[in-house]
Amino acid sequence: MTAVIDAIEVQVFDTETRSIRDTKGHRHPGPLASAQEALVTIRDSDGAVGRVLTPTRNVREDAVAGPLFGALIGKPVLSVEAVLRDLVIAQRGNPVDLADRRIAVVDELLWDLIGQRSGEPVWRLLGGAQPRIRAYASTMCGDDTPGGLSTPEEYADYARTLVAQGYSAIKLHTWFPPLDFAPSVARDIEACVAVREAVGDGIDLMLDGFHWYSRSDALKIGRAIQDLDFRWFEEPMDEVSISSYRWLSEQLEIPVIGPEIISGGICLAVTGYASVPSTFCALGHRTRADSRQR
Amino acid sequence: MTAVIDAIEVQVFDTETRSIRDTKGHRHPGPLASAQEALVTIRDSDGAVGRVLTPTRNVREDAVAGPLFGALIGKPVLSVEAVLRDLVIAQRGNPVDLADRRIAVVDELLWDLIGQRSGEPVWRLLGGAQPRIRAYASTMCGDDTPGGLSTPEEYADYARTLVAQGYSAIKLHTWFPPLDFAPSVARDIEACVAVREAVGDGIDLMLDGFHWYSRSDALKIGRAIQDLDFRWFEEPMDEVSISSYRWLSEQLEIPVIGPEIISGGICLAVTGYASVPSTFCALGHRTRADSRQR
Repeated sequence: MTAVIDAIEVQVFDTETRSIRDTKGHRHPGPLASAQEALVTIRDSDGAVGRVLTPTRNVREDAVAGPLFGALIGKPVLSVEAVLRDLVIAQRGNPVDLADRRIAVVDELLWDLIGQRSGEPVWRLLGGAQPRIRAYASTMCGDDTPGGLSTPEEYADYARTLVAQGYSAIKLHTWFPPLDFAPSVARDIEACVAVREAVGDGIDLMLDGFHWYSRSDALKIGRAIQDLDFRWFEEPMDEVSISSYRWLSEQLEIPVIGPEIISGGICLAVTGYASVPSTFCALGHRTRADSRQR
Repeated sequence: MTAVIDAIEVQVFDTETRSIRDTKGHRHPGPLASAQEALVTIRDSDGAVGRVLTPTRNVREDAVAGPLFGALIGKPVLSVEAVLRDLVIAQRGNPVDLADRRIAVVDELLWDLIGQRSGEPVWRLLGGAQPRIRAYASTMCGDDTPGGLSTPEEYADYARTLVAQGYSAIKLHTWFPPLDFAPSVARDIEACVAVREAVGDGIDLMLDGFHWYSRSDALKIGRAIQDLDFRWFEEPMDEVSISSYRWLSEQLEIPVIGPEIISGGICLAVTGYASVPSTFCALGHRTRADSRQR
């Protein structure tokens, strides 16, 4: 008898955080504060469970009861691709309740359950060609906190700290609105120069800054970090402008990376520039991206 | 002194409906039932108001208080394009609370307010080249209700009724899941044949059926309705597959229409097939689509 999905429950719990979100949704360090998060648990007819942690806004009761989780009960645990396809089709008529980040919760729940049942880590079930991958340090976005990431020199100091901790690759997130001095082409380049000078040539560096630069501003930054031997240039322009990404990729020798937020289907349908669908689990959903790549 | 936005309030009210949504979000006729809807009112510093009606899920209190409406207070009424750009940028970090349909509420609110202030209808403020446009009758989706739209013959009967009412153009929405006999290439074509035979050659007909046909199925339907002299073929394949739409457009002489749901920026960034951004106000947001067309 194939195991079927029996129940899904959401527990909202109190926790603490040292990060705060600014008005554009970027996270920065903050004082210790109370916060809420949600633990979602899926149970199958054999009593196996899968779990996922998610922000509470993804699983508000009125949104999940019907369209998101309702259709799952009684479905085979292993029908994850069929379940995701049904949700994506239903998304057309329910774009808010079935936003990509909410569908991603179902994707992660089912894969965690499948992994728990099999006793194997999910990465191995998905193909698992590489038992090890390189990690890179990824900074938070720039801020205006002295001693934080408020100047190119502070990025350089922090990069030295990361290298001392053993990191051989570092990705910089530079300055965004609502900071009143952001965005700034000159300041982004200064930070990249300062970090390269601080860490020397042996460290891989990447830039992931403001996402709405014009083509000409993006090209200025891209040429500068290419000269600094950066490893890639991530999402410097509005991600829906596929033609801008194609154009920029043709001007530069280093990879231009994107998109991250728009549906995985679209980025994979368009060739012509580098794309790293590394964040689909958080921002879209992995199963759909995978289906499109076939 | 330029008028600025003073307040936005949401009133949820009880109403009645004769339509029901199926599990995929399609509306069908139903028995009279109670329902809730939201009236959103925006007020400016001169006391002028703009209003929009929207489903309650678009303006749930926890979602709108901060990210959606919070940033508007104090902004100039006429800064609609700046306001929308800020929301689209903030959407990246708040994709659920700032889903396209929610941003669309702000767009409609501001344009209604601007129209009320100027004493002009919004269509005229937006350029207003045409004081009159042709209307077409648009059927609901197919159903399995005898006497409704459950067979090709019932579509034909209903089309005759519409022509008798004076319509000179009719768009058919055919059958979708969760109906167990949908989707069906043969049945969709039969409905189109039956309607063309019923109304004769003098009436414009359009088809907007199942949105996830394969390329080959879509081509079969497209050729059939081209032979029936249909005016356009709307969204027969997954809208994110731009390459599929390009391909289908090359095979057919009648226009292939789309996309409707994915961000307007994307459809307008890609040339090669016909696109009618007619539903941005309902499904995306007009100001953004307009910006991209420039």
